[in-house]
Amino acid sequence: MSIQAEKAERFRTLHHADHPLILPNAWDVPSARVFEDSGFPAVATSSAGVMVSLGYPDGEEMPRKDLVSVIGRIAGRLSIPLSADVVSGYGHDAREVVATVKLVLRAGAVGINLEDVDHSRGRLYPVRSQVEKLKTIRGLERTTHIPLFINARTDALSYALGDASAKLREVIDRLSAYRDAGADCLYPMGLVDPASIATVVRAVDFPVNVMVRRGLPSVAELERLGVRRISFGPSASYAALGLLKRASEEIRTQGTYRSLLEGAINFEELNRLAIARRPEVGAVGRTRSGSP
Amino acid sequence: MSIQAEKAERFRTLHHADHPLILPNAWDVPSARVFEDSGFPAVATSSAGVMVSLGYPDGEEMPRKDLVSVIGRIAGRLSIPLSADVVSGYGHDAREVVATVKLVLRAGAVGINLEDVDHSRGRLYPVRSQVEKLKTIRGLERTTHIPLFINARTDALSYALGDASAKLREVIDRLSAYRDAGADCLYPMGLVDPASIATVVRAVDFPVNVMVRRGLPSVAELERLGVRRISFGPSASYAALGLLKRASEEIRTQGTYRSLLEGAINFEELNRLAIARRPEVGAVGRTRSGSP
Repeated sequence: MSIQAEKAERFRTLHHADHPLILPNAWDVPSARVFEDSGFPAVATSSAGVMVSLGYPDGEEMPRKDLVSVIGRIAGRLSIPLSADVVSGYGHDAREVVATVKLVLRAGAVGINLEDVDHSRGRLYPVRSQVEKLKTIRGLERTTHIPLFINARTDALSYALGDASAKLREVIDRLSAYRDAGADCLYPMGLVDPASIATVVRAVDFPVNVMVRRGLPSVAELERLGVRRISFGPSASYAALGLLKRASEEIRTQGTYRSLLEGAINFEELNRLAIARRPEVGAVGRTRSGSP
Repeated sequence: MSIQAEKAERFRTLHHADHPLILPNAWDVPSARVFEDSGFPAVATSSAGVMVSLGYPDGEEMPRKDLVSVIGRIAGRLSIPLSADVVSGYGHDAREVVATVKLVLRAGAVGINLEDVDHSRGRLYPVRSQVEKLKTIRGLERTTHIPLFINARTDALSYALGDASAKLREVIDRLSAYRDAGADCLYPMGLVDPASIATVVRAVDFPVNVMVRRGLPSVAELERLGVRRISFGPSASYAALGLLKRASEEIRTQGTYRSLLEGAINFEELNRLAIARRPEVGAVGRTRSGSP
């Protein structure tokens, strides 16, 4: 089995372990490497984090090649599995989305997040269209021999019509369809209250992913609710940039550097984050420099 | 006068104002934009911050084109002047270094930091060689018509031979030579104690830059010592990555998200940091996407 296939298997088992998988989302090499060094068993990317870091708003405005390039850079410096946020796959149909997934696999990722929002029109894709994409992606491993982990996300809580309970029904209907189409994990974006989380977990009877945001129950409570994966989303970007705001305010108004210096890493630690812990692991199918 | 030339003039006057210029160093678009929104009148890049974010240690291992690309992305999203850290200019002689400076100017920067370390050999360049580079860069504006601001850095405190006082003498000798060669500001890397700062400022009688690090006097005291520019160096990268370590530790050991959520920005704020405050300003001489 290739190193990438082994990583994909390892990533899958993390969703069926004794405790939920806590999955931090990075946006560049050092944010990913600091998570690896902190002991997380896998890392994901955040599309918002990656895109804003390159000067594009979240969505699909940023050229796909730039997204793939960042995924390749990060994968090339990590020894643990990397899952890539590919937004809605940069395409309206299964053929286009699969082309994106192939590029992301070639860049070294072993998992993806796929949204069901048509970003060009600001509305949900029809369920049938999304199911077709997921089935086609699922079929990829017959030729790639990499058991890609598919996290199927729905934004129905934001985009579906009707009241809260109609939206929740749409979330459950969509996630059930995505599960049956071959997804490995289901991701109801925006779900935070314990009752709704419990309802969705019971209804789909399948691994569910929730995202860190204000109001999310603790990891222990999420475990009791049956959640299998807790991801950071863009929250680490929000926190890091919030710190830069506070440090700026402090130096400008008080002329001191406490926020910059307290709890900071140093030059040697920073430089170590640029390189892989175990060189060559994870470098399969990419160029020597790790950036395709 | 071009917008870029006007920015260069504005950046110069900031070194001769009533108070020292506090200059934050960024490594990507949102770190630069958050500094702009915090009220700083200019932003610089940190080579360590930029390079590590792309998976390379600080120095000149990262391809020059990648460095220029990041500078272009940041300049394209800023309305205020940007100064670029070009390490030692990616070259051993004046011709090679000037080629780098031209690329950085074309990417939208209006100032540079130039080191005097030969990174391929781990030692200082001879003074004569560094002076030749600075003179040639100074001469550039006859053809570019952009009054590039040159911050000449010496690493003599780390690399010069002899005891502390011999090193300090070498710092002063080098900075005096760089001043006479046409530099606009002098940057003795590693200088933190008030007595040495006062000695250097008196000896060179010219704008001096110091960097935030543990032990640096407050902004008010630095102003009394005659310092004209206080830059962050890589300290904002150190602080942001330190925060990610703490947040990781908290979620892994306590299962809570306080470090991720407290004082964080939100999704709308993050997306606003991807775009320029005033579109088109600063986009002179670059491609539409802002990345040359």
